[in-house]
Amino acid sequence: MKEVAIGIDIGGTNTAIGIVDRDGHCLVETSIPTDTHDDVTKYVADVSKKIQDIIAFSEGALDIKGIGIGAPNANYHKGTIENAPNLRWKGIIKFSELFQSHFPGITVALTNDANAAAMGEMMYGGAKGMKDFIVITLGTGLGSGVVSNGELVYGHDGFAGEIGHTIAVYNGRMCGCGRKGCLETYASATGVKRSIFQLMCDSNKPSSLRDIPFSKMTSSDVYKAAVAGDELALECFDYTGKILGEKMADSVAHTSPEAIFLFGGMAKSGDLIINPTKKYMEEAMLPIFKNKVKILPSALGDVNAAVLGASALVWSELDK
Amino acid sequence: MKEVAIGIDIGGTNTAIGIVDRDGHCLVETSIPTDTHDDVTKYVADVSKKIQDIIAFSEGALDIKGIGIGAPNANYHKGTIENAPNLRWKGIIKFSELFQSHFPGITVALTNDANAAAMGEMMYGGAKGMKDFIVITLGTGLGSGVVSNGELVYGHDGFAGEIGHTIAVYNGRMCGCGRKGCLETYASATGVKRSIFQLMCDSNKPSSLRDIPFSKMTSSDVYKAAVAGDELALECFDYTGKILGEKMADSVAHTSPEAIFLFGGMAKSGDLIINPTKKYMEEAMLPIFKNKVKILPSALGDVNAAVLGASALVWSELDK
Repeated sequence: MKEVAIGIDIGGTNTAIGIVDRDGHCLVETSIPTDTHDDVTKYVADVSKKIQDIIAFSEGALDIKGIGIGAPNANYHKGTIENAPNLRWKGIIKFSELFQSHFPGITVALTNDANAAAMGEMMYGGAKGMKDFIVITLGTGLGSGVVSNGELVYGHDGFAGEIGHTIAVYNGRMCGCGRKGCLETYASATGVKRSIFQLMCDSNKPSSLRDIPFSKMTSSDVYKAAVAGDELALECFDYTGKILGEKMADSVAHTSPEAIFLFGGMAKSGDLIINPTKKYMEEAMLPIFKNKVKILPSALGDVNAAVLGASALVWSELDK
Repeated sequence: MKEVAIGIDIGGTNTAIGIVDRDGHCLVETSIPTDTHDDVTKYVADVSKKIQDIIAFSEGALDIKGIGIGAPNANYHKGTIENAPNLRWKGIIKFSELFQSHFPGITVALTNDANAAAMGEMMYGGAKGMKDFIVITLGTGLGSGVVSNGELVYGHDGFAGEIGHTIAVYNGRMCGCGRKGCLETYASATGVKRSIFQLMCDSNKPSSLRDIPFSKMTSSDVYKAAVAGDELALECFDYTGKILGEKMADSVAHTSPEAIFLFGGMAKSGDLIINPTKKYMEEAMLPIFKNKVKILPSALGDVNAAVLGASALVWSELDK
């Protein structure tokens, strides 16, 4: 029998489920829609059914060691998902408990998606052997997982690692959290979209992006234009990297990481985002930290990085 | 024989030395000048002589378990003091090694003064039993010690916890570190001094402080004026608390502490600094963190808090 962990990544639209071994190989992957389920009990039953089907199909070849779940607004200490804006289930949901009822006696661990990404990076990815690092997930928003002394920083209440909601610009852009100027309103896919329109206003430079309305623009459009040499799109990545880099200098002053990993959709822009982030971080950094901190792309595969991260939680729990 | 630790707090002017028991009682305290020693080897020999004298005087009643040292720019991992602006000894000094040569076989641990304060708070003070908290030392500058999962956050290079050098105001006040707008240029004794002059410029309000020249003004003058009801001095504390509170909201987003302790000279202003810091931190904080994080004065005694902190390092090392 092969020892494996179940990794579950809960997104607003889809839920990805994978069976992952100790070395981070995803043996099977499947998914179910998230947003078609109004009833969370039914949702958990459906996910559990999918997992049971895979176990049955393996005919005793798999030794399931635990279930790791990454989800927005998840609380590791309490095993809950609390008021996640992008999920249908409101209030405080005892998520671990729901899963536990379908898998009695098996370890169930839940954390937020960025923490799961950090765990995956440490277990299978570029942070192997590192004890101090930060993972920044650049998606619709900006998530973060902070690892210090080899352990995920959960904080007193289980909600640590909200670097996306540190203030980058006082009285800056309106954020979904109700405040203004949060880092994620600049450094994220939606941040890039907002920035390209800001640059269009401020500059007279021509750009192919001027033909796309606000409601249709995506960060991928900006990326493609930048690759094609569009000056305004290139400026947009420089501006995004400037704000991200300056705030990363603040984060370094908190926990002095060996590396900062960029993870998720926008991180695939590669050097376009990594180079300016690194440059402005170095410029903004306290001298004792200069030229010490790497900015790296996540080394987890594209396809199922979030599932890998979630599964890594299981090994971490078992190794405690 | 009584088990004790030696605590040494190295300041720019004086070095305080204390013998402290497991419960945080300082049995003996003494000091020698720091700034009269150009030669660090001679300095360490003199400090060691002081300690040896106390041990001899105790006639075998003391069982010295180790030596803990708090110093500016100290590196826990390497046992060094590196380019401390307020000490005469430049370059990288192998400080632990120097002490070890005088006390062979005894545990010697070194860390920066703010980390030592955090350790003291956890071992003997208000953070007993807490696993996640931050200590902010408000002196000439602003130091910080971050504790997460019950451990001091040293970071990859041993220099974590430089919250005083996160940026509070972009292109703000010139900082001793060579950059602009660092938190410590606003929230510290010198920050208060700078702010009161800024308020004198911006406002027409009368104030007794208008008679004191820049070179003579101290934060203590501003404190006394505030206590006497001077409106400008009160505004100065409000302004200082605003900047400190807003940046503390950022720090909370990193490590989600249970409490933030204010330590050092300026922290003695009590509610004058604690109330506005708390108020503006709450206003600036991400909703999930609101009304959870305490702002508390250090519970270590006034007299030898830094020595207590340094001595706490020893128990922490022995308990590892």
